[in-house]
Amino acid sequence: MSAAELYAHDPRTGERLEPAHPIATPDDIERALALAWEAFGTYRQTSLKARAAFLDTAADRIDALGDTLTDLVMAETGLPRARAESERARTTGQLRLFASVVRDGDWLGARVDPALPDRTPLPRPDLRQRRVPLGPVAVFAASNFPLAFSVAGGDTASALAAGAPVVVKAHSAHPGTSELVGRAVREAVQEHGLPEGTFSVLLGHGHDLGTRLVTDPRIRAVGFTGSRGGGLSLVAAAAARPVPIPVYAEMSSVNPVFVLPGALRDSGADLGGAFVASLTTGAGQLCTSPGLVFALDGDGFEAFADAALAAVAAAPAAPMLTDGIRAAFDGGTERLAATQGVRTLARGLAGADIAVACRAGLYLTDDETFLAEPSLQDEIFGAASLIVRVRDTERLKAIIASLEGQLTATLHLTPEDHALAAELLPELELLAGRVLVNGWPTGVEVGHAVVHGGPYPATSAPATTSVGTRAIERFLRPVAYQNVPDALLPEELREDNPLGVPRRVDGRRD
Amino acid sequence: MSAAELYAHDPRTGERLEPAHPIATPDDIERALALAWEAFGTYRQTSLKARAAFLDTAADRIDALGDTLTDLVMAETGLPRARAESERARTTGQLRLFASVVRDGDWLGARVDPALPDRTPLPRPDLRQRRVPLGPVAVFAASNFPLAFSVAGGDTASALAAGAPVVVKAHSAHPGTSELVGRAVREAVQEHGLPEGTFSVLLGHGHDLGTRLVTDPRIRAVGFTGSRGGGLSLVAAAAARPVPIPVYAEMSSVNPVFVLPGALRDSGADLGGAFVASLTTGAGQLCTSPGLVFALDGDGFEAFADAALAAVAAAPAAPMLTDGIRAAFDGGTERLAATQGVRTLARGLAGADIAVACRAGLYLTDDETFLAEPSLQDEIFGAASLIVRVRDTERLKAIIASLEGQLTATLHLTPEDHALAAELLPELELLAGRVLVNGWPTGVEVGHAVVHGGPYPATSAPATTSVGTRAIERFLRPVAYQNVPDALLPEELREDNPLGVPRRVDGRRD
Repeated sequence: MSAAELYAHDPRTGERLEPAHPIATPDDIERALALAWEAFGTYRQTSLKARAAFLDTAADRIDALGDTLTDLVMAETGLPRARAESERARTTGQLRLFASVVRDGDWLGARVDPALPDRTPLPRPDLRQRRVPLGPVAVFAASNFPLAFSVAGGDTASALAAGAPVVVKAHSAHPGTSELVGRAVREAVQEHGLPEGTFSVLLGHGHDLGTRLVTDPRIRAVGFTGSRGGGLSLVAAAAARPVPIPVYAEMSSVNPVFVLPGALRDSGADLGGAFVASLTTGAGQLCTSPGLVFALDGDGFEAFADAALAAVAAAPAAPMLTDGIRAAFDGGTERLAATQGVRTLARGLAGADIAVACRAGLYLTDDETFLAEPSLQDEIFGAASLIVRVRDTERLKAIIASLEGQLTATLHLTPEDHALAAELLPELELLAGRVLVNGWPTGVEVGHAVVHGGPYPATSAPATTSVGTRAIERFLRPVAYQNVPDALLPEELREDNPLGVPRRVDGRRD
Repeated sequence: MSAAELYAHDPRTGERLEPAHPIATPDDIERALALAWEAFGTYRQTSLKARAAFLDTAADRIDALGDTLTDLVMAETGLPRARAESERARTTGQLRLFASVVRDGDWLGARVDPALPDRTPLPRPDLRQRRVPLGPVAVFAASNFPLAFSVAGGDTASALAAGAPVVVKAHSAHPGTSELVGRAVREAVQEHGLPEGTFSVLLGHGHDLGTRLVTDPRIRAVGFTGSRGGGLSLVAAAAARPVPIPVYAEMSSVNPVFVLPGALRDSGADLGGAFVASLTTGAGQLCTSPGLVFALDGDGFEAFADAALAAVAAAPAAPMLTDGIRAAFDGGTERLAATQGVRTLARGLAGADIAVACRAGLYLTDDETFLAEPSLQDEIFGAASLIVRVRDTERLKAIIASLEGQLTATLHLTPEDHALAAELLPELELLAGRVLVNGWPTGVEVGHAVVHGGPYPATSAPATTSVGTRAIERFLRPVAYQNVPDALLPEELREDNPLGVPRRVDGRRD
């Protein structure tokens, strides 16, 4: 650790925010890990009701922080009030959704294959299956969602729902927010009489604390949202352990958008404006920001590009989260603008009154340049996007085949584009975790059917999602019980199903 | 590749078996991979009915091989007729079980969260989710189950069920069996008009062919059953790819058995005999063979150990699969016998009439020696087991805490042991994929509730199973579809559910 404390800074003003936040000492870290391990045995065996009630209380306590929290989020991140408020609603809604998931019990994956004592040539034993949590989980908070992907965000909610204690590495960009939210969850832990180690928050500088957590034998899984470099270093550290553990890293995505001919012709200009509205949301600091737009040359292309150009040129600057993120954004846009075959279409307003300002950027290239230059697929975190003019559908298919794994892939189409869309969709569903039609990838619903995940390098674990109810599955593994006497079985597997959880009996729903 | 062809050998006689089997050339390998990739787009979109019918036909054709197959299995592996026949039944039963899984459609994980256009502050989009296959799968056949974990074994059945083309690396110990079974499956591919690349079998020597398959960009997942060294080298190769892929490796396990005081006192001698019957099944060449037995010192311990000793001393030798396996077994038993604090209780009969004979081995040590010597946890593949005399229940808990991840953990108990068992079970379910009471770990049911998996290093992917219907999940990932018009949706997600697959709507079962 390089210093004993750190400060947040208001990206709107550049002002250092009091108070100082102490950085976790080696003793703090050891204590959190020891307590988490100690808590695991108890916490994982809490009843479904008790665990759900705890999650509900955590949500209530975060909601009760009210404007104190909203104001602090705004000061530490520069995000506007409406975003801070909607993100709090999303965060507490997510905790309550997982409370309902816990109560429902379907996540236990209970299965019963009853004994067949008279089967020949051999009798069949009684076999029952349920899922158990992997163990304590280290959650790495993201910078860009100070609530929804941070201390009490999706990874935390899904791990706690699974019965796993959580140790959060708070993000140094919003230490005050992390402390407030962390305290609210810890109060819920106390109120419900849960072991102290059920939930801890540690603040520290990136690499040291992160490696310490991921390599500790008491940590059994990792949730991470952040950069590709950061994610891959955790993946490597976890794989090198004597006993490797899974790292669920959501890393980088440029979220390609494909505008098909009918859509371009019918509403090229409207789409150009809507595209820039999505692009500039949150100063483009969203993992689902549309960083690449492929539009087929022809009717409507110019209208689309012109409207996007005008919208970017008029886009007010917005604060970015940190100096580091802004420096990376500026570096990325400079490199992009200097790439041969790429033209700068527009830059947004400069925002001289903002200390850490994002000036939006819009760029144009053609299919040939795009196919020849792999760096054009690199994510630029912030409000920058590249429009690619694509000659024909064959080129479009070649481009799709060349793309890296993504969180999202979007089609804009009209009914006359259906034939082409039907050809493209099978490729897009292999490319991304979420496929959208006639929308924009920013804005991720928290529900049952959503997938916020996707093929590598969008994530390190393409078969999972970090948003939505399926996220709980990341922290569970199945165990089978063979001929275990009823009195010794976990409640959810006992013959009379006292908890009433959904079960499959001989493969059929109960 | 070191040679152009290889021969099987009869482990009973040592005789070389005709004919020679050609080893896959680089061209053969490239062709299989190219065809598998080409087949993927078509095969993954076969209807549930068509795919299930194909699996049923594959099973029928393997069954139709009859005694030709049984005789060849016996000649190439030395396994007895009853085992060859029951393994064929298990293998074809497994294919038919996966056919029924495919028809049922629950594996698609279909979820629908309908649009809420009037929701405030923002309308909710329509979101639908299903699982899609990862892509072509490389399956590494095991030596010890020439049918059930080989060419058309569990990995193949579950991958084909998921819609993934399969490229099998056949095991060089049973090339004729592999060819016969491979031909049967390929006939089923043809009969159902599926693309040729849906299924291929390649024969080669271990490392070269394996690395080639795992590092090819067209392979998207790996199923492996074999040694820890082999599994870990595939895991490392897969992780080092530009785009890493999952390796589902079932590697090694010593399957600890814990005999509690009541069980020892009530039936120590009977348990000793039953233990050796499990140990010597298949010459101990089973991943679930009981390699470690922990029995509490006291009443019945001597009766248990004496009965086991007598049973091993009278155990006839049995053929092992290959010279290499026998050499490793002999090396392992020599090292074990020479370990300080370990006593050889008994060796089985020598079997001078068998070319590649396994002579069973039974060893004894105490808790202190066991806790001090980690090598006593190493798997010895074959009929060798170590009884550990455990002083008291505290020591027993310390031992459980010291054990590596396992496929199985077994308790023997009577009602008077329930209190102790209730303390141990939460630890055992974190240690193993399957927990048994009053049985023996050999003999794995193929059903819905079974788990053949477990924490590292039993497997490389503890959240999965390689046996049972849940095995299909390894080769799938979820995709969400947002506002995709009904006509463009996959059939299973269309509004009227034309396939009638089970779905969750807003989180509730349809």
